[in-house]
Amino acid sequence: MKLHWSPRSPFVRKVMLFAHETGLVDKLECHRTVVAMTKPNAELLPDNPLNKIPTLILDDGSPLYDSVVICQYLDGLHAGPKLFPTEPKAYWTAMQRCSLGDGLLDMLLLWRNERERSHPDPAYLSAYAVKFDASLANLEKEADALAATPFGIGHIAIGCALSYTDFRFPDLAWRPSHPKIAAWLADFVKRPSAKATEARDG
Amino acid sequence: MKLHWSPRSPFVRKVMLFAHETGLVDKLECHRTVVAMTKPNAELLPDNPLNKIPTLILDDGSPLYDSVVICQYLDGLHAGPKLFPTEPKAYWTAMQRCSLGDGLLDMLLLWRNERERSHPDPAYLSAYAVKFDASLANLEKEADALAATPFGIGHIAIGCALSYTDFRFPDLAWRPSHPKIAAWLADFVKRPSAKATEARDG
Repeated sequence: MKLHWSPRSPFVRKVMLFAHETGLVDKLECHRTVVAMTKPNAELLPDNPLNKIPTLILDDGSPLYDSVVICQYLDGLHAGPKLFPTEPKAYWTAMQRCSLGDGLLDMLLLWRNERERSHPDPAYLSAYAVKFDASLANLEKEADALAATPFGIGHIAIGCALSYTDFRFPDLAWRPSHPKIAAWLADFVKRPSAKATEARDG
Repeated sequence: MKLHWSPRSPFVRKVMLFAHETGLVDKLECHRTVVAMTKPNAELLPDNPLNKIPTLILDDGSPLYDSVVICQYLDGLHAGPKLFPTEPKAYWTAMQRCSLGDGLLDMLLLWRNERERSHPDPAYLSAYAVKFDASLANLEKEADALAATPFGIGHIAIGCALSYTDFRFPDLAWRPSHPKIAAWLADFVKRPSAKATEARDG
C-alpha cells in the first residue's frame, strides 16, 4: 500500500505510530507528499481532493482517508491486540478520546497558520487559546483513566496532539499546571513507536 | 440523551438526518447551543473543550463527539438496516465517502470564515476554490457508484456537504458542469429526513 506521507505531519505520524505498534510498517510504501493549506499539491488532488495527508492508496488503487479511517483499516490487517477496542464501552471511550486528540490537533494546525498570517485575527488567536486551555483541563481530569486503559487509538491521537504542541508551540508552558497528563505524555514519548516517528525540524 | 444542537450547523444536521433515517429522533433532547470559531461557548466547553457541535451527552453524563462517532453510536441503537455497512468492503467505501463529505464541509466552513474576515487572504481563498473544484470532480466521477449503493453514512455526509454549499455558497454554480452528482443531490434533498432537517436562514 502506498501512503502519501511527510515526516513532520502530525496526522501522518498517527498512522506511522499505529503501524509501528501493530507491526505493519513494512506494508507501507511511504511517498513523500508536501501539502500546505494554501498550496494544493496537484499530484495528490486526484487521490484526495481535500489535499490532506495521510492518504492511503490500497492495492486496488482506491484511496482511503482520513487518519482515523486508515488506522481502523490497518487494525484489521494484523493479528496482535486490537488498538480499536472490540468491547463496546471501551470502543466508545477510545473513539471519544480519538476525537478529542484529533480535534485538538486540527485546532493547533489552524492556530499555527493564524500566527503566520500577515494579518492574524486577535479574535481567532484568543479563541484558540481558550480551547487549548479547556482541552488541557479536560485531559488532566481524564489522565488517570487514560493511563489505566490498554493502549489504543485514543492514546495515539492524544499523544500525537500533545507532542505536536511541544514541537510547534514550545511557548505554551502547559506542564506545571497539568502534572498528570504531563507524566502520561512522558511515558508515551518513550514508546519505541513514538521514538521512531518523532517529528524533527530541518 | 442530550444533544448540543443548532438549527443551521451542517454537522448537527448530519446527526439529525441520521436520527430521522433510523427512527431515533425522539431519543434526542436537542439543546440549542450557539458556537462560532471566534466565540467559545462557556457552557459547552466542559462537555467539549473544542467548542464544537454536535456534542452528545449520554445518559451516564459522558460526552460523545464528533458527528461520525455520534452517528456510529446511534447506529447501534436501532433495529433497522444499518447505515454503517457491516460488510467490510462496503464499510470502507462508506467511511471513505464520509471522510470526503466531512472534509469538504470542514473546508467550506473555513472558506466562509475566510470570506468574512476583515483581511481575507487571497492564497487561502484560491486554495479553497481549487479543493472545491477537485472535490466536485471526484464526486461527479463517483456519482453512479454512490447512487447504486444502499443509503448510508457516506451519502449523508456528502449530501449535507453539498446542501451546505447551496445554503452558504449560492454563487458557486457547480451544477452545469457536474450533472450526475447534481441529479443525485436532487434525489437526496427529497428524502423526508433531508426535508425535516433542512437549514433555513433567519
